[in-house]
Amino acid sequence: MSEARIWHGGDLDEARRLFPQAPEPWIDLSTGINPIAYPMPSLPASSFERLPSPAEHRDLEAAAAEAYGAAHPATVAAAPGTQILISLLPALMPRARVAVLGPTYAEHAQAWRGAGHDVADVQTLEEAESAEILVLVNPNNPDGRIVGREVLRARAAALRSRGGWLVVDEAFADFEAGESLVPVLPENAIVLRSFGKTYGLAGVRLGFAVAGETMTARLRAAMGPWAVSGPALIVGRRALRDRAWRETALRDRERDARRLDALLRPLADGPVQGTCLYRLLTSARAPELFAHLGRHGIWVRRFQSDPARLRFGLPGSEAAWQRLGDALAAFAER
Amino acid sequence: MSEARIWHGGDLDEARRLFPQAPEPWIDLSTGINPIAYPMPSLPASSFERLPSPAEHRDLEAAAAEAYGAAHPATVAAAPGTQILISLLPALMPRARVAVLGPTYAEHAQAWRGAGHDVADVQTLEEAESAEILVLVNPNNPDGRIVGREVLRARAAALRSRGGWLVVDEAFADFEAGESLVPVLPENAIVLRSFGKTYGLAGVRLGFAVAGETMTARLRAAMGPWAVSGPALIVGRRALRDRAWRETALRDRERDARRLDALLRPLADGPVQGTCLYRLLTSARAPELFAHLGRHGIWVRRFQSDPARLRFGLPGSEAAWQRLGDALAAFAER
Repeated sequence: MSEARIWHGGDLDEARRLFPQAPEPWIDLSTGINPIAYPMPSLPASSFERLPSPAEHRDLEAAAAEAYGAAHPATVAAAPGTQILISLLPALMPRARVAVLGPTYAEHAQAWRGAGHDVADVQTLEEAESAEILVLVNPNNPDGRIVGREVLRARAAALRSRGGWLVVDEAFADFEAGESLVPVLPENAIVLRSFGKTYGLAGVRLGFAVAGETMTARLRAAMGPWAVSGPALIVGRRALRDRAWRETALRDRERDARRLDALLRPLADGPVQGTCLYRLLTSARAPELFAHLGRHGIWVRRFQSDPARLRFGLPGSEAAWQRLGDALAAFAER
Repeated sequence: MSEARIWHGGDLDEARRLFPQAPEPWIDLSTGINPIAYPMPSLPASSFERLPSPAEHRDLEAAAAEAYGAAHPATVAAAPGTQILISLLPALMPRARVAVLGPTYAEHAQAWRGAGHDVADVQTLEEAESAEILVLVNPNNPDGRIVGREVLRARAAALRSRGGWLVVDEAFADFEAGESLVPVLPENAIVLRSFGKTYGLAGVRLGFAVAGETMTARLRAAMGPWAVSGPALIVGRRALRDRAWRETALRDRERDARRLDALLRPLADGPVQGTCLYRLLTSARAPELFAHLGRHGIWVRRFQSDPARLRFGLPGSEAAWQRLGDALAAFAER
């Protein structure tokens, strides 16, 4: 575990500590993980027992290259989750001036700082002019802000002129097609893609980096062979090739996001933002609402950087939708 | 995958390429993985779907600390396999003169070289006198050589006087108790322990580093939170606390190793060496025997560094023992 106390979603132990009287089971809306998981195939014993096969590992990278629109499988490095790529990338780069476009997922700045880089938290691309490495999450977590691919390509060109790198975390891009940098990848860009969020399989630990072949080879070498587990190889290759499931899931999650917005909008100061896997509410009453929901056994994501924000993941069952709707209605009436 | 062409065990695709006429199913004796796996517990859907819980991750490190005799869970970092620790450790260290005591598992020297260190392959500890970082596998793979813990503690002290580190890969130490450095860990030592080999669950991807708290924190930070999958958290915690299974497995594998030695000894030039998970045969006829076994659908481990060596893992069924015995007898009669 990371030693720093960054708040993360998904930790119900923390929820139970804060709200010991809350009814069980908890409804966990604190992550941006698809609540309707891709169905796990049956796993043969050999997937746990044998060393993962190099051919299957290559096939997984080929499946990811196709799903993401990458030029070639040699530009894709599979990893046991995107987080490990976020954490180890700074150790592979010479000390640099790094700008992280925020507020965003806090592990990025933490990882670059921890590895000794000179990190600036910037709010706009203009403030990042002097950086040698620019890091952003696109669409951004938690507010869903999207920086267009042509803007990013221009940025990459400017960075390249001084030997710099563009790092784009596209953890939530699968369901927001159109602006991914992967199909038009600049040679000094590194794009991270998450498997667990889209497919609702965060426990499997699977993610990818897409980059030029030299950088991809460095990332592969930094993880060594067999970085991805046998079960992840099986479900990853199947799911990434299942276009029909992805299209249905996108339509369903877009519908869920609209339904969630309808519940949140009456409580919001301004627009509700985000992606179709999470929605961000801004409200002066957010701390109060966080506590109210916690007492009702509903765990949402608050932010160290801005107490007026709460991020809601999507309920995964009609019962969860009802409990959330009732709790929000009760709050609105107070 | 690593880009370099290091030969590894466990790749039956390679076996099928080299011996397309061999009978199926192949008997894979090319790894040092326990052929009798720890029984996988049933895995709830949540283990695949939810982010691994920080409390379960800490509990896994506590279970490993206890099993390995570490001073405290804060000295144990869980990882998705030992290999990723081997691969990323060199990226965390300032450029140094590194000595790797060999011949041994080739990924060590490869990883340190790839990260830009000055690497010497040495055959004796005496040749490593000027190194700042000393790397060894203990017991060694493939020959089972054991360097005693008091010798290693003296080495660590000498290295410490010049700010250096001792890295000990104890991948095969679980079944060779008595000389592990973990219970008497010098502060500048990093010990790696493998889960998949002992428990026959190499596809799960689980391994550990044991080191001082500062180094452990650096390793944890380099992998970030959630480095270990949900299924690995479940089986790892259970298996590491199952002392009875480990004791039975040790007795059974020792018996298997003696049985294997009885088959190999007639073909060997000199003693058969190794650990109770693999046995090393040295013979001028090794290349010929490798091809003979390949044609019989039996895949063993050969070595780029020494064509006179073949390493045999343990057969996992009586049928496999019979096929191996028959093939070896047929070779002896030629």
